[in-house]
Amino acid sequence: MLLRILAMRVRENELIEKIAAALGRRPRVSGELRLGIGDDAALFRPRAGREIILTCDWFLEGTHFFREKHPPDSVGWKCLARALSDIAAMGATPRCFLLSLALPASHTGRWLSEFLRGLSRASRKFACVLAGGDTTQGRGILIHIAAIGDAPTGRAVRRSGARPGDFVYVSGRLGEAELGLQILRGNRGFLNSKNPLLKKHLYPEPRLALGEWLAKKRLASAMMDLSDGLSSDLPRLCATNGVGALLESARIPQTRHSDVARKQGLDSLCLALHGGDDYELLFTVPPPKVRALPRTIQGVILTSIGKITRESKLALRNEDGREQALAARGWDPFR
Amino acid sequence: MLLRILAMRVRENELIEKIAAALGRRPRVSGELRLGIGDDAALFRPRAGREIILTCDWFLEGTHFFREKHPPDSVGWKCLARALSDIAAMGATPRCFLLSLALPASHTGRWLSEFLRGLSRASRKFACVLAGGDTTQGRGILIHIAAIGDAPTGRAVRRSGARPGDFVYVSGRLGEAELGLQILRGNRGFLNSKNPLLKKHLYPEPRLALGEWLAKKRLASAMMDLSDGLSSDLPRLCATNGVGALLESARIPQTRHSDVARKQGLDSLCLALHGGDDYELLFTVPPPKVRALPRTIQGVILTSIGKITRESKLALRNEDGREQALAARGWDPFR
Repeated sequence: MLLRILAMRVRENELIEKIAAALGRRPRVSGELRLGIGDDAALFRPRAGREIILTCDWFLEGTHFFREKHPPDSVGWKCLARALSDIAAMGATPRCFLLSLALPASHTGRWLSEFLRGLSRASRKFACVLAGGDTTQGRGILIHIAAIGDAPTGRAVRRSGARPGDFVYVSGRLGEAELGLQILRGNRGFLNSKNPLLKKHLYPEPRLALGEWLAKKRLASAMMDLSDGLSSDLPRLCATNGVGALLESARIPQTRHSDVARKQGLDSLCLALHGGDDYELLFTVPPPKVRALPRTIQGVILTSIGKITRESKLALRNEDGREQALAARGWDPFR
Repeated sequence: MLLRILAMRVRENELIEKIAAALGRRPRVSGELRLGIGDDAALFRPRAGREIILTCDWFLEGTHFFREKHPPDSVGWKCLARALSDIAAMGATPRCFLLSLALPASHTGRWLSEFLRGLSRASRKFACVLAGGDTTQGRGILIHIAAIGDAPTGRAVRRSGARPGDFVYVSGRLGEAELGLQILRGNRGFLNSKNPLLKKHLYPEPRLALGEWLAKKRLASAMMDLSDGLSSDLPRLCATNGVGALLESARIPQTRHSDVARKQGLDSLCLALHGGDDYELLFTVPPPKVRALPRTIQGVILTSIGKITRESKLALRNEDGREQALAARGWDPFR
């Protein structure tokens, strides 16, 4: 009965009002966004000489997050951050997004307010404004983000373009998000979301500045983001290009918290190879351009982890010089 | 155990392959879409002098359709058609869409093939190509469409712009989709989807040609599509403009199947006022421009059903001249 009363209390119009209030009530008519929420559709007018980048991502309870584990504020932050990671992977600039929410009536109060707080923080931080969306009632919490960005025409970096001999680079340290997830899962109830071990999992930062810089300097021959794990994502980049890769295990940048990982029964190299949710950039650089790459950009390390090979297989060379095949063991929702 | 085997059979990469094969394998590099599925994001380059229209819609099992009632082919058609109705309501032209699917492993075989057949038909019919999307496993069938269109800069028709004295118009006959839904719900199992009474519910046609024509001729001062029902949608248009409306009950275009409706215990006027899912256009026309409107456009009737009033209330005048308040009784997912 209480549920029914709650359901009666909230109407779709009110929900839209609440979202609009949290994320900017006035339809923005400045910049590229000419018409925002409140109409049938949004209007976006790109600046001359730029093309549009379109991407979207599910963020579903039970698959991408758990309501009893993930603070709603982190759910709000992360749903936008991971969609913008695809924009970063094109070397583009985020502009606006469409938020689609299906919520149980019981989650349209405090949960929604905290979710919107996290989403709003990410929206301001990454300069990506709400342009519209769709709301409905759901049995579970369903979130979908469609993100729109732009890039100078012809400058977006694609997955294709990698050539044998190109160096394979990653940004940041890999596997820390997976470590955070395992810590979260191993604990009962909520953990302090300020715990630095959880930051990479709860509040990832898309590598927007790095992506834009690489595109502007034309340094990356191919690029994608790491969302499912290096061992699952690198084969996709290789398949697009009909090439393979040979990685050096000693060069893969691992978590600095290997002691914590060990306590969890996890190996840092395995986390780095197969852990999902990193939202770091994976890119290839032709040999003559390697010198132009700094070691870090805005505090984010850049590491050459191997090379693109002509033969279309993926291999990992251990410190003792032996090579082994690298099997895709990253995240697959259908596994 | 069988479910587990099915789940193992399908991988995300294979699912994406299947979708790509059904909807156009090659990334289109002609026209506005410069890069389609298979990368982190799609690239869209609008023609000079045009701006982008962005909209999105949920299409969820249990809320928007029922797997035991709705043919998968109709689910595929309708999820795109209703998203494009928002593009029609701006007077814009559809260009491409992002398809996000969450499916139980049991529905990645025949159900998915039929769904894709319907979606592919709609995609060709409305000249709107697949640009990308996201797939994952779900307990229920979750569909989300983000649609992208364009319109000559400054020409898109908004919800704002209606003035007191403007005539209120609708396209087509209202309430037929709701009648179809009621027939479908009253029957056990599947009905023949070719039944003409079900067509409006199962295979709606967004009024794209009409919307574009109204925008081009600058005839509509405000426009939106009818998705939740006239009595729920008209108040939204009025609220945006700070106005009201007086409708003439005798003028509301009702279903020609009023006998069928009566057998279902339904009143044709009630269906027309409150029935959802019509995907007809609701628009206002300033008095001097009314003469330019034909009675039909491509077989779709256009009907003036009343006028915009200064006083911000909604009223319905019956045939005997008495007025009554028109309450919002259309579709609200939170009711």
